[in-house]
Amino acid sequence: MSTTGKVIKCRAAILWEAGTPFSIEEVEVAPPKAKEVRIKIVATGLCGTEMKVLEDKGRFPVIMGHEGAGIVESVGEGVSTLKAGDKVITLFLPQCGQCAACVNSEDNFCIQFKQSETSLMSDGTSRFTCKGKPVYHFANTSTFTEYTVLKEISVAKVDAAAPLEKVCLISCGFSTGYGAAINTAKVTPGSTCAVFGLGGVGLSVIMGCKAAGAARIIGVDINKDKFEKAKEVGATECISPQDFKKPIQEVLVDMTGAGVEFCFEVIGNPDMVAAAFASCHESHGVCVIVGLLKYGVQLNINGWLFFSGRTLKGSVFGGWKSRESVSKLVSAYMAKKFNLDPLITHTLSLDKINEAVKFMKTGKCIRCVLLL
Amino acid sequence: MSTTGKVIKCRAAILWEAGTPFSIEEVEVAPPKAKEVRIKIVATGLCGTEMKVLEDKGRFPVIMGHEGAGIVESVGEGVSTLKAGDKVITLFLPQCGQCAACVNSEDNFCIQFKQSETSLMSDGTSRFTCKGKPVYHFANTSTFTEYTVLKEISVAKVDAAAPLEKVCLISCGFSTGYGAAINTAKVTPGSTCAVFGLGGVGLSVIMGCKAAGAARIIGVDINKDKFEKAKEVGATECISPQDFKKPIQEVLVDMTGAGVEFCFEVIGNPDMVAAAFASCHESHGVCVIVGLLKYGVQLNINGWLFFSGRTLKGSVFGGWKSRESVSKLVSAYMAKKFNLDPLITHTLSLDKINEAVKFMKTGKCIRCVLLL
Repeated sequence: MSTTGKVIKCRAAILWEAGTPFSIEEVEVAPPKAKEVRIKIVATGLCGTEMKVLEDKGRFPVIMGHEGAGIVESVGEGVSTLKAGDKVITLFLPQCGQCAACVNSEDNFCIQFKQSETSLMSDGTSRFTCKGKPVYHFANTSTFTEYTVLKEISVAKVDAAAPLEKVCLISCGFSTGYGAAINTAKVTPGSTCAVFGLGGVGLSVIMGCKAAGAARIIGVDINKDKFEKAKEVGATECISPQDFKKPIQEVLVDMTGAGVEFCFEVIGNPDMVAAAFASCHESHGVCVIVGLLKYGVQLNINGWLFFSGRTLKGSVFGGWKSRESVSKLVSAYMAKKFNLDPLITHTLSLDKINEAVKFMKTGKCIRCVLLL
Repeated sequence: MSTTGKVIKCRAAILWEAGTPFSIEEVEVAPPKAKEVRIKIVATGLCGTEMKVLEDKGRFPVIMGHEGAGIVESVGEGVSTLKAGDKVITLFLPQCGQCAACVNSEDNFCIQFKQSETSLMSDGTSRFTCKGKPVYHFANTSTFTEYTVLKEISVAKVDAAAPLEKVCLISCGFSTGYGAAINTAKVTPGSTCAVFGLGGVGLSVIMGCKAAGAARIIGVDINKDKFEKAKEVGATECISPQDFKKPIQEVLVDMTGAGVEFCFEVIGNPDMVAAAFASCHESHGVCVIVGLLKYGVQLNINGWLFFSGRTLKGSVFGGWKSRESVSKLVSAYMAKKFNLDPLITHTLSLDKINEAVKFMKTGKCIRCVLLL
């Protein structure tokens, strides 16, 4: 029997308030309205961003999760680019195709991203209900649920043969890191790179540097357990700041003679941003901030470091224009241009989401994929 | 009688110690050694950089000045690209053609720039003597003297018809501003720009933005006397932060709807760098620091401003590879591609250098050119 146009009852992981465990509940998912799509989520990553906001203020109850992949269940009125049965990836960063960012070739930060600040759909309401109460959306996506509703512009159609339990990482972590190297920094062949922070996004940065032809890729982390995997995906060497008496920026300048040409901060720590920037070549060095800094945090940077020409820049979703690029990235994955397996250390069912949170906190888990 | 190979006695403005007036003295200028060139200076600008370092610690006595133009008097052994009689411009930023910066198409910060830190020539000695004492060089150039000695790599040969009392500005101020827009920011046609600080370099930034095809160029200064000239060279509007209750970054975001696409800080004030950066479009906005910050000054910047993709970068000598570009810029000037007249408000003889300093301090002087 078709579910189109009907409310679907299904299971979802709900966070009732900050700092509590997720709770698996039955939820009601309303049908998609105009320009919306209802998706059956098949797999979703648990990303570091969720780990950061789990404890934060926010709107509750909420269905979190944004690194999702699934199959279109039904589409609302006026949806022209997707149909029931399409394999898709969810996009926390939409691509409306019309705003100043979308029409600028050097920009990908679609103005519709800001819809997520409301934690609701465009009409100001939620599509989720639990125990009679509306439940907030999250990051334009909400993927910790068997069914979710997204705007059409927040959904990328992908290759019908793609393994969703792998390519869900293209929804966020992989693309964010890989693109930061390729699109934002524009890493050049033969160059020297350093990557601060060797989590899933940091490893993806390394893959991007390697794909761009970097000659030397130095991984930096205080957790040496991460070095083996970093080398597996392309780091040529790895160092821990704790093994040196000098500040890490001086160590990197010594190692390279004149600083690294491209440096990536993939931690979200203001002191590490300053260190990464100071690690760069004095004139053509480019430092990209990939790690999510806490809202309102001040960066204290030696102004003189800019004098000779250094560049410091941010990067959202690896600079990819989301809808068009995610489809292409999945095709590239299918053509074995890169491998996502090294990033996925744990696969669990949605029921085990609280275990997944614990794994992430240990630092031993790179990416935990939840299956629905 | 040829002066080649002989010591030349001539007049120079010497600064015997920080914070004192310049003193016009007779100096002895030794002949150029290998790979050096002795130049008869015809005209030299008094640049804001000199104004900043006049009061600073440094090495004394010194012959300052770096924005010079003149005629080659004689060349040392092994000089192949210049000969006596060539019209030339002095380069505080050399172009050795061999270092990592010189061979990188995106870089111009020649490693030989650092020679200036010694305030001496490469052999560790000075070519200037006054009253029996050696006198320090300055900024690889020293142009407040009738004759000076520079390294071949610090000299650009220019069009024999060029008026030296005008094109001396291509030696520093004009090129620094014009290139910051064209090379460093890469201003795009139809874009919106803002320029903080409307001195000679700021006006040159405006000219660069205009040449690059910017649709809107907003000049920002607390001295409204500067607005007329800014509009003359290309600003479409000018504002003073003192006319608003809101911070200037909020004013600019309101004026433009989403922030300016390219913003230039041409003051050297850390608070204005933060304001200029915050004035930029949240994702494709690029802010270039052109103003010279005091050594060691910390920039305190809201880290979240980077999240959406903004870029903050430095710029030296407008990103021009100095020797090759200065020759081309002079040819462009001769072809009337830009006009230097609006930048030159005062022309005085070297004797009047202390008056020139006073003019610069009033803020009414954009550029004072000294004739020798």
